[in-house]
Amino acid sequence: MAMPERSSTADAAYPRPLDRALLGLEPDPDDPRTWSFVVTPELSRTDGRFYGGAALAAALTASEIVTGRAALWSTTQLVATADRGERIRLAVDVVASGRSVDQVHVRGLVGERLVFNAVGATATPRTGAVAGSGQVMPAVPRPEDCDDWHGILRSQIGGDGASPSVGAPTVGHHLVSEYRAAPLLDPFTDRPGHLALWARLTSDLVSAPTVMSPAAIGFVADMVPIAVCRACGVEGAGTSLDNSLRMGHPVETEWVLLELDAHVAVGGFGHGHVHVWSPDGVMLATGTQSARLFSFSDFMEQLAR
Amino acid sequence: MAMPERSSTADAAYPRPLDRALLGLEPDPDDPRTWSFVVTPELSRTDGRFYGGAALAAALTASEIVTGRAALWSTTQLVATADRGERIRLAVDVVASGRSVDQVHVRGLVGERLVFNAVGATATPRTGAVAGSGQVMPAVPRPEDCDDWHGILRSQIGGDGASPSVGAPTVGHHLVSEYRAAPLLDPFTDRPGHLALWARLTSDLVSAPTVMSPAAIGFVADMVPIAVCRACGVEGAGTSLDNSLRMGHPVETEWVLLELDAHVAVGGFGHGHVHVWSPDGVMLATGTQSARLFSFSDFMEQLAR
Repeated sequence: MAMPERSSTADAAYPRPLDRALLGLEPDPDDPRTWSFVVTPELSRTDGRFYGGAALAAALTASEIVTGRAALWSTTQLVATADRGERIRLAVDVVASGRSVDQVHVRGLVGERLVFNAVGATATPRTGAVAGSGQVMPAVPRPEDCDDWHGILRSQIGGDGASPSVGAPTVGHHLVSEYRAAPLLDPFTDRPGHLALWARLTSDLVSAPTVMSPAAIGFVADMVPIAVCRACGVEGAGTSLDNSLRMGHPVETEWVLLELDAHVAVGGFGHGHVHVWSPDGVMLATGTQSARLFSFSDFMEQLAR
Repeated sequence: MAMPERSSTADAAYPRPLDRALLGLEPDPDDPRTWSFVVTPELSRTDGRFYGGAALAAALTASEIVTGRAALWSTTQLVATADRGERIRLAVDVVASGRSVDQVHVRGLVGERLVFNAVGATATPRTGAVAGSGQVMPAVPRPEDCDDWHGILRSQIGGDGASPSVGAPTVGHHLVSEYRAAPLLDPFTDRPGHLALWARLTSDLVSAPTVMSPAAIGFVADMVPIAVCRACGVEGAGTSLDNSLRMGHPVETEWVLLELDAHVAVGGFGHGHVHVWSPDGVMLATGTQSARLFSFSDFMEQLAR
């Protein structure tokens, strides 16, 4: 499919410097329109496999590079694992191109092996068009007043929330991110699957305050299965089948609030959402996920066998 | 990709009779594993173009036919229109196949033209696995006590909600569906983008009470843009970029409650969700959509030019 005309001028804007650094993106020397990256410890789960939040981040970034517009949404289907050191190539088809929106199909490939399969769109906002918000951020303490969340989890279960392992993780996406437990202060929001976390990127990737890019938000927001397990009365997590993100207002911020909420789970498969807020209550994005769920007790039993 | 072993025994179960009738699905005489359907007035919007809810329904059904499992989720990207009378062929790739879950990529094609592009999964529930619900159905009057919703809309704007046109529609998916406005009775749920509709399939497709299939739920649930517009303070609708649905509990029911809620809209592009409930409060499914939004007043101005 032919590239949109604007892409020649857009190469300077995308990939955004933050995303390029976060994912370690490199253009192919023989084909500068094709980008790839290597699965590093920072782009892995604590079990060493490729992290779903990084797949979503890569899909969002690839759609921006090829269309020259900001990412509007992506559903990134997580098909297969990739191991540390493997190089993932981003193959983008622009399946429809309009005046204000482009639709894309992005595949992440190791050789010919499909690692993730994403559909989505990029868009140019239209001046004076319909805009607004349907939700209100829950009241929570400021990040400075909240406790480290991985520390709390490790003290309880000997692992981290997204993919538990015994002891402090030496591999995992939290090498470049930080989470803090944000207790909900509103008495009406006491559903067990409704919880909030402050999240930010750490290390020298970020010069704060920065605009958290769609990719960076997708990278930190991959926490929905934890909320779904809590709603079901178990402490657990999940293997994501997809990571979906839909973008709201771009705002300069270091911290983002992940407001997680469970929808429903049947027979070990469940769904939920995450609303992503700036500290002053602007909705930056909204995400959903489906996952294969497990309780930490089942997981530890399997490890012990 | 090789078919999962179970597919040979599953052909009897899928497509479900309701879905086959709703979509007019037919197997290819030369290749009984490939199914197609024709865009009829019932599968159209009121402007005569192919209806996004029908695309989602077809993607869900195609994933069930090929894998022999019940649909778990689908994000169906709406790429291009199709006109009445065109035949849409369903091309399914099983991109991953596991013990309890299969991942699929479904394309809807008119000849070689891509009409929709869907990623998703089908699953077999695991006995004793994590299950539960994180949400509670809002209190609303029973469907018998609610007014026809299209009648209300037509009296206000001279069209229907999903794609307005002047006068009573003679073409459109509501030829086989019915909607009633369900006022929310809970005083805490007074956000303008939070609204509810009762929906059911009509005509002789359905012998009530029946299990509303994933496809049938997807067919009636395509209403999120209306909620997003209301949250933004305008009466309007949208052109969907995708229809996504994630399945909860299958329950025998004629009516389903569509609990719509807006997330956020920027520059004419917005997002929201729909929770789908049985009348006794079981969460049947949960959906999300992104759409290009317009107000009815802008739309009528364009029509008048």
